Amino acid sequence: MKIAILPGDGIGPEIVAQAVKVLNALDEQFELETAPVGGAGYEAAGHPLPEATLALAQAADAILFGAVGDWKYDTLERPLRPEQAILGLRKNLGLFANLRPAILYPELAGASTLKPEVVSGLDILIIRELTGDIYFGQPRGVRECPDGPFKGQREGFDTMRYAEGEIRRIAHVAFQAAQKRGKRLTSVDKANVLETFQFWKDIVGDVHKEYPDVALDHMYVDNAAMQLVRAPKKFDVIVTGNMFGDILSDAAAMLTGSIGMLPSASLDANNKGLYEPSHGSAPDIAGKGVANPLATILSCAMMLRYSLNRAGQADRIENAVKAVLAQGLRTPDIFEEGTTKVGTEQMGDAVVAALA
Amino acid sequence: MKIAILPGDGIGPEIVAQAVKVLNALDEQFELETAPVGGAGYEAAGHPLPEATLALAQAADAILFGAVGDWKYDTLERPLRPEQAILGLRKNLGLFANLRPAILYPELAGASTLKPEVVSGLDILIIRELTGDIYFGQPRGVRECPDGPFKGQREGFDTMRYAEGEIRRIAHVAFQAAQKRGKRLTSVDKANVLETFQFWKDIVGDVHKEYPDVALDHMYVDNAAMQLVRAPKKFDVIVTGNMFGDILSDAAAMLTGSIGMLPSASLDANNKGLYEPSHGSAPDIAGKGVANPLATILSCAMMLRYSLNRAGQADRIENAVKAVLAQGLRTPDIFEEGTTKVGTEQMGDAVVAALA
Ligand SMILES: CC(C)[C@H](C(=O)O)[C@@H](O)C(=O)O
Ligand SMILES: CC(C)[C@H](C(=O)O)[C@@H](O)C(=O)O
Repeated sequence: MKIAILPGDGIGPEIVAQAVKVLNALDEQFELETAPVGGAGYEAAGHPLPEATLALAQAADAILFGAVGDWKYDTLERPLRPEQAILGLRKNLGLFANLRPAILYPELAGASTLKPEVVSGLDILIIRELTGDIYFGQPRGVRECPDGPFKGQREGFDTMRYAEGEIRRIAHVAFQAAQKRGKRLTSVDKANVLETFQFWKDIVGDVHKEYPDVALDHMYVDNAAMQLVRAPKKFDVIVTGNMFGDILSDAAAMLTGSIGMLPSASLDANNKGLYEPSHGSAPDIAGKGVANPLATILSCAMMLRYSLNRAGQADRIENAVKAVLAQGLRTPDIFEEGTTKVGTEQMGDAVVAALA
Repeated sequence: MKIAILPGDGIGPEIVAQAVKVLNALDEQFELETAPVGGAGYEAAGHPLPEATLALAQAADAILFGAVGDWKYDTLERPLRPEQAILGLRKNLGLFANLRPAILYPELAGASTLKPEVVSGLDILIIRELTGDIYFGQPRGVRECPDGPFKGQREGFDTMRYAEGEIRRIAHVAFQAAQKRGKRLTSVDKANVLETFQFWKDIVGDVHKEYPDVALDHMYVDNAAMQLVRAPKKFDVIVTGNMFGDILSDAAAMLTGSIGMLPSASLDANNKGLYEPSHGSAPDIAGKGVANPLATILSCAMMLRYSLNRAGQADRIENAVKAVLAQGLRTPDIFEEGTTKVGTEQMGDAVVAALA
């Protein structure tokens, strides 16, 4: 089994190094091969997703991804910017199913900006479609406005779209995930305004017929944003499109107050996947040894479970992370009075020790 | 001065009745004319926005709008559904600037699901463009997928677009609003993915040159959704497009925990406007006399300030609302131990009494 290791920019290399330590400490050894991506790809090969990096990702059984982006690349033209790497990987590898758990660890309940009774025990799963929608729809660009009161002016435009098969396959992923959890699925749309999402709602409703044991409800995206703030624990699994999922999954992650703890998986039709922390590259703290490596380490657990079929090893890693939290170890982002502040490496070492 | 009164559905008629009482209790009398809209429009004239209602709204100096929608209209085809009324009013009247304050009244700090230190004193203003974007862009519909792996299948699609002049005029509204407040404006976009919002960002940056006294920053919509949960008080004025604004303004309103308190204004280029509470028609509590009329009453204050040029009367209403809160009066949605629970009418009467 081969794992492509793409550390990326900012804190990416530091946190991925800890995750690699953890992978190397497992009973079974995997072949790990590293390649530059994002700003690092641009520096090394003039492109955020160098050909060799894409080839490695395609050949591997799974991909561990750190984070990309740094202010110093903000002035590059769009096709060369670091985030094109992640968009390119998703599209080229067909990683259409993004799984983003938002879990509040009991020890970290105080980190949330929400009241404890609103979020304690929070455990929701957001499933975001990742290769369709307005992210990739054509045509798009800047053109002369063809009609209406602004005719003749320049206008920016994009195309939102979802084909039936695209909706069906993500709906199947979502219903099956719900079957393994609380058997409740909320499909988030904007069917009252958008044709794309009226269509989405209809198709999800149709797929529901194959999953009579799952309770499905439909919710408008504006209401979903409100309910995440008002009563997030009422959700079990949420499924939505790429654009709405981008917004809602970040909002849900922030409810926990500990986004440094949240992993993610992006899967293709055969459960090959890319695994990355839900947080970004945080260039402001890069190289200081203070970044929280746990989201990346927990992303390895998701990788072992979903792509490498090693549920037992995944459990071991997750239990090791729980153990270090129980020991009171905290990186600065989750530190509070009465716990022990540690750096990135110490945290990684503690997880390795707890694996034993 | 003529005000069109459009009560609508659900709790709309009850809450608007209280606001009308308040308008009638002012020193100056306005001409009020009522017409059906939403489901009520459909019942009365077979269309959610009957011609006579639209004509009244066009002729009036300002519009007081309750709320539209009820489950019983969910099975109508889309052009006949209640929400088409509000979309039609916005578009036909050119109400492009939606102002949505999210304010936490000190007496209601406990109603929020967020910790008091995170939200106490919250006072942000979201400015949402309201007549453009993917809400109205053409083409849209369901068609045969023209290319890619799903070619030949059905697909839903919509068009996102913003013309230069559309962005400029909402940017001017936002910079001018910021000048009257904390002089800080956050423009929310998704320029890293969408051509429409790279264009938006460029134009807002250009308009900024005319407002050197306002500090402008640009934020991606996913990050904005996170920051609203993490540290909402860091914002002053937020400006964004129609779709992102729909989501973020509802999330921001819910941060206060008292959405029954939040008014909104939707203005055209001459400050003619439509005023409505930020909450919806709440058909589950309609007719029970428990709905909170304060958001609608506060919408009258916004109307007096923005469209009718009666800032003094607006202040009187806002002070009367503060007074009833200080008296401890609460409708069930904002009730807590130690306060006095009142119904919709009692609350309206109390505001009228406090005006004196
Ligand atoms: C970097 C950006 C293109 C990306 C997205 O919008 O998908 C990021 O926000 C994410 O959620 O992974
Ligand atoms: C009812 C719906 C069409 C409307 C919108 O999406 O604009 C509503 O959510 C709002 O924010 O006023």
